Amino acid sequence: MGGYLMQKHRALPAYVPGEHAEDDSFIRLNTNESPYPPSPSVAAAVAREVGQLSYYNDPDCTALRAALAGLYGVQPENVAVGNGSDELLAFAFYAFADADHPIALPDITYGYYDLFAAVYGIPLRRIPLKDDFTVDVDAFCGAGCMIVLTNPNAPTGYAISVDQIERIVRSNPQSVVLVDEAYIDFGAESCLPLIGKYDNLLIVRTYSKSRSMAGARIGYCFGCADLIAQLEVIRNALNLYSVSRMAQAAGEAAVAENDYYMDNCRRIMDTRRMTTDALREMGFEVLESLGNFIFARCPQMAGAQLAAALRQRGILVRRWDAPRISEYLRITIGTREQMETMLEAISAILV
Amino acid sequence: MGGYLMQKHRALPAYVPGEHAEDDSFIRLNTNESPYPPSPSVAAAVAREVGQLSYYNDPDCTALRAALAGLYGVQPENVAVGNGSDELLAFAFYAFADADHPIALPDITYGYYDLFAAVYGIPLRRIPLKDDFTVDVDAFCGAGCMIVLTNPNAPTGYAISVDQIERIVRSNPQSVVLVDEAYIDFGAESCLPLIGKYDNLLIVRTYSKSRSMAGARIGYCFGCADLIAQLEVIRNALNLYSVSRMAQAAGEAAVAENDYYMDNCRRIMDTRRMTTDALREMGFEVLESLGNFIFARCPQMAGAQLAAALRQRGILVRRWDAPRISEYLRITIGTREQMETMLEAISAILV
Repeated sequence: MGGYLMQKHRALPAYVPGEHAEDDSFIRLNTNESPYPPSPSVAAAVAREVGQLSYYNDPDCTALRAALAGLYGVQPENVAVGNGSDELLAFAFYAFADADHPIALPDITYGYYDLFAAVYGIPLRRIPLKDDFTVDVDAFCGAGCMIVLTNPNAPTGYAISVDQIERIVRSNPQSVVLVDEAYIDFGAESCLPLIGKYDNLLIVRTYSKSRSMAGARIGYCFGCADLIAQLEVIRNALNLYSVSRMAQAAGEAAVAENDYYMDNCRRIMDTRRMTTDALREMGFEVLESLGNFIFARCPQMAGAQLAAALRQRGILVRRWDAPRISEYLRITIGTREQMETMLEAISAILV
Repeated sequence: MGGYLMQKHRALPAYVPGEHAEDDSFIRLNTNESPYPPSPSVAAAVAREVGQLSYYNDPDCTALRAALAGLYGVQPENVAVGNGSDELLAFAFYAFADADHPIALPDITYGYYDLFAAVYGIPLRRIPLKDDFTVDVDAFCGAGCMIVLTNPNAPTGYAISVDQIERIVRSNPQSVVLVDEAYIDFGAESCLPLIGKYDNLLIVRTYSKSRSMAGARIGYCFGCADLIAQLEVIRNALNLYSVSRMAQAAGEAAVAENDYYMDNCRRIMDTRRMTTDALREMGFEVLESLGNFIFARCPQMAGAQLAAALRQRGILVRRWDAPRISEYLRITIGTREQMETMLEAISAILV
């Protein structure tokens, strides 16, 4: 394979996402989806657009950007929207880094960053998490290159504070600091207030987690107007129409029902507390997560073995064959009932 | 502007799409959309997915690829799906060309190609259309680099034959020949049968024109299994989940109702005939188009002036300030009634 693919792409690794299970026979705790459906008005908003599908969508996502700006107290020119946060992340990597301008990031974080860097030939400076899996903030200060941080981080669930982010952003004025806030709605503090103070801070968000729309592909990001305009240069050149009519309408409807989603986040945080406590009582090491997932290690059984045993009982969780974390499982927080089923399954497996 | 944008991106031109008019107060004949809505079952298929939006979409687009393969008599591994054909085109440019591997294309064709090449630093060899606006087939034979052809071409509407495409593909075995068949359903002959014979032929299609779904963002492409696998390397690295649940469901539903869309194409071809004849009777030069648009020049009035006069009467058409074509208008074929309104407006303007 590879006869026409440019030579530089032939060694690209494949991104391996969590197992995709289309049917409900599995309890899917492996891809950090929400266990709750979209809010009631999303269906009606999408249905209204279906009759208009023969017409192109608004390439500027005017209404959705205005809605997000209103919700978060910024201006529409501080917002860009993309086909999932993955698209915006890829655009940002290509806009703000290249072969001569590396990116610094933690060694353990969202795996897709590796691919964006690899496909665009961007060197990565991997800064190890500390022994306790927290981000080494000092090591990022003054890095002198673009920095990418998921906050809270995945798969650990650990967050750094706004003060710590500000130190990093302030000490790195010549490069962009990208903070991926995919999991920000589950208890950590957003660094959004900083975009008014620093022109090098880009905050990326997604509808895939707290907004129950992983399958709709809606991402957005915040930055000072000038930084957003720079990102838009790349979006304009690569896929100006990428956010469909249905996605724009769904996204806008969800903003109007924000309370519904924030209530769900609180429920997930409660369930996370219950699950964390229960696993600890069973002897697990469980990191104190601020995401919609927990990262946990079983003292009695190898991670791979436990994951396989759970799968046999119809429960999917995520595990990586990677240094330092191969014994841990990343378990998405589902409904209380789903977590109780999982806890019972683990009890039965460990008997 | 541009403090953090990599230097090489700072001179990127902006892609200027046709004016986006969200409301129905305009007759929109400027972006080659279909005047007919999606088929009846699309709405139900999309509605079914809304309840599932909290779950990720299938990154392999398994059902949609199988449906397209069945309709077109190929195997699923001959098909890739993307977030609009624009995404697939950008992926193909990045996969199969680079700074040292240029792309040859006609000087007058789809304008977004310029951006994909510019943003990826790919040199373009622009091969002029002949004086009669037809593609210079001989000049593409043995080009020795990747070739990109829209067939039928836009904005001319002229197509080349499958035999001519085969000559180009066969004479260029070391590089990919990308044939963009966005407008293939309006009377030209597809080169799809050639993918079984040549491993360097990539055919790109869209739901935006003949399938009435410009706003849904669904593109697909055909090639030999190995070429598709090479393209998938880039898709995997950049945006694996780009085709939402709603888009996949809409696309699949449309395949099952293909007759509806082909009937619409025939209606558009009839209306194109009527419009072409009527404009010629008014003295216009009208190219004999095989697209869902015509390219026409008014002998009595400058193109810019006529376009502005039509806009004042609520009718949008497309015009480019570019060498050789600045006097021409590209007019999308709408419903018969819309075209009659346009013809009456032109009569009134030219009185």
